[in-house]
Amino acid sequence: MTPAFIGIDWGTTHRRATVLDVQGRVLAQHSDADGMLACAGRFRASLEALLQRWPEAPPDVPVVMAGMVGAVSGWQEAPYLDAATPLTELARHLVPVRDAPAGSRWRLVPGYRWQDDAGHVDVMRGEETQLLGALRLLGQVAGDGCYVLPGTHSKWVQLRGGAVESLRTYMSGELFALLRERGTLSAAMQTAADAPDAQAFARGVAEAGERALSNALFGVRARVVTGQLAPASAASYVSGLLLGAEWHDLRRWPEANGTVRVIGEPALAKHHAACAEQLGHVVQLLDVQAVQLAAWQALQAQGNMR
Amino acid sequence: MTPAFIGIDWGTTHRRATVLDVQGRVLAQHSDADGMLACAGRFRASLEALLQRWPEAPPDVPVVMAGMVGAVSGWQEAPYLDAATPLTELARHLVPVRDAPAGSRWRLVPGYRWQDDAGHVDVMRGEETQLLGALRLLGQVAGDGCYVLPGTHSKWVQLRGGAVESLRTYMSGELFALLRERGTLSAAMQTAADAPDAQAFARGVAEAGERALSNALFGVRARVVTGQLAPASAASYVSGLLLGAEWHDLRRWPEANGTVRVIGEPALAKHHAACAEQLGHVVQLLDVQAVQLAAWQALQAQGNMR
Repeated sequence: MTPAFIGIDWGTTHRRATVLDVQGRVLAQHSDADGMLACAGRFRASLEALLQRWPEAPPDVPVVMAGMVGAVSGWQEAPYLDAATPLTELARHLVPVRDAPAGSRWRLVPGYRWQDDAGHVDVMRGEETQLLGALRLLGQVAGDGCYVLPGTHSKWVQLRGGAVESLRTYMSGELFALLRERGTLSAAMQTAADAPDAQAFARGVAEAGERALSNALFGVRARVVTGQLAPASAASYVSGLLLGAEWHDLRRWPEANGTVRVIGEPALAKHHAACAEQLGHVVQLLDVQAVQLAAWQALQAQGNMR
Repeated sequence: MTPAFIGIDWGTTHRRATVLDVQGRVLAQHSDADGMLACAGRFRASLEALLQRWPEAPPDVPVVMAGMVGAVSGWQEAPYLDAATPLTELARHLVPVRDAPAGSRWRLVPGYRWQDDAGHVDVMRGEETQLLGALRLLGQVAGDGCYVLPGTHSKWVQLRGGAVESLRTYMSGELFALLRERGTLSAAMQTAADAPDAQAFARGVAEAGERALSNALFGVRARVVTGQLAPASAASYVSGLLLGAEWHDLRRWPEANGTVRVIGEPALAKHHAACAEQLGHVVQLLDVQAVQLAAWQALQAQGNMR
C-alpha cells in the first residue's frame, strides 16, 4: 500500500513516526532517539533520513509533526493556539515548515496556551494532539471532561465543548529526576528496591495532602534517618508525594469532576490509578498508543491542509 | 588572654570556630571550608590542625562542636534528643568524642528529633544550638514562640517552655539550587539580572498561596515562553514561590502565632521579612552571628561537661 499520511510525535528526547494508508490503517511505525535536543541544527536532514525508510511514499505525502519540534527551541515555532480553539479545528491551524522541499507537505501542529482571569498561564505542546485522539475515540460530547497526561511535565486538562477550559502542568517527573540525581534525597532514592513499594507510595499520597511539598520532601530524609522509612522505599514515597500533590490539587479546580481519563505509559498510568482509588476518584485508562493513532487518523480525515 | 572555650559550628560545607576567654569574650574566630563532606575520614586531623591556630589554649580546653559533624555521616553520631528536652539542658547532653586525645574535652552537640501524634517526623542538627543562643539573648520566657532559620533546609521551630513544640523543615534552598542547576527552568534562572526583582519575588509569594508548588514552578516556564515574565526575573520569582510556600504554610500550624523570629544571613533574612510583610506577619530579625555567639556563651556558662 502507498503511504498516504505520516504523523510524527516529536518530543524533547524521542520521536515516533506512524505511517498510514489512505484509509487510515497503520502501514509502519518507527521510533528513535532523534528528539528535539539531538536534532538541533539538523532537523531537515534528520526528517529526510527518516522518510527514506519509506521510499514508496510520494513526495507530497502529508507529514504532520506534533510536540517540541514546533517549539521556539525546536525546528520552527508553531505559535500557541488560544485555549478557546476547539481541538477538532487543529487541522486548520497546522503550520507549514518553511525549510521544506518544493512540493512537499510538511506541517507542524501548534501547541495551546491557556490563561485565566487571575493571570495564571499554562502551555502544552504535543498533548493537544493526543487529546484530539481521545476525542475521536470517545466521541466529541462524551470526550468532554478531565484528563491527565502524566510524564516529565504532567498535564491536567479540562475539556469543554472540545476546547480547553483549563490547563495546569505539574513538574512531577522532572522534580523526581532532579531529586534522585543529586542532593539530600538522592542516595536513598537510588537504593535498589526489588519492586515499587505500594505502601510507601500510599503514605506519600496521603502526606501530600497534609504538608507543603518542600516540607514533605524533607520528611523523606527525616523518616530515613530516624529509621521510619527504609531507604529502598524512598523513591516510591517521593513518587507518592509528587503524584499525590497533583490529585489533592483537584480540590482547587471545581470545574473538574467526574471520571478522570489517564493517557500515559502503563507504569505511570497505574500509579495515577492508585492515587485515584486512594482519594476516591474514578479513572478511565486510555492506551497512549491508541490515542496517538486516533489523533493521526483524525488529522488525516480532516485533511484540508494548506 | 587564655582560651577557655572553643565552639565550632561545623556544617556540611563550612565550619566556623569561636574562641572565648574565661568570661565569654571573643578572643578569636576562624572560618574555613573544612565542612563535614571535606573532612570525611580525617576529622581528628582536621580539628587538630584548626586548634594549632591557638597554641596558647590548654590541652583540656572545652571544644564544643555543633552541626552535621555529629551526624551519622559525620565524625561520630550524637543521637537526636527528644523534642521535649529543654534547650537549656543541652550542655548536659553533649557527647564526648571517642577519637579524642587523652585529657582533651571534645564534645558534640546532639540534634533534635520531633514527632507528632500523626507520625510526622522532623529533625535538626546545628539549629538547636542557635536557638539556645536566641533564648539567651531574648530570655527564656520571651524566647518562646516561632522561629525560622532559613537556608538550604529552612527550619521552622515553635518553642514552648524552652522545648521544641513543633519543627518543620522546607527544602527551599536545595530545591532552588537544583532547579537553577539543570532542567526546564535552569536557563532562565541563570540569566544574569542586575539585582533581585522585588516585584517578581512578590508575585511568586502570592502565587505560592494559590497553587501546588510543582504546578507553580511550571508556571515560571509558561510565563517566560508567553512573554509574561522576563527570564532575568525568573530566579526572583522562583525564590518567591519557595519562600512564599513556607509562609503560607503557617495557616496549617495553629500553634504558631505572634512575632516570627528570623535567624539567618542578612540577604535571606531580608527575603523572609518581605514575605512576612506581604502576608501580614510581624518579624524580628536576629543577627545570626550574635545568636551563635550567645549559644557558645550559654554552653560555656552551663559548662558542667563530663
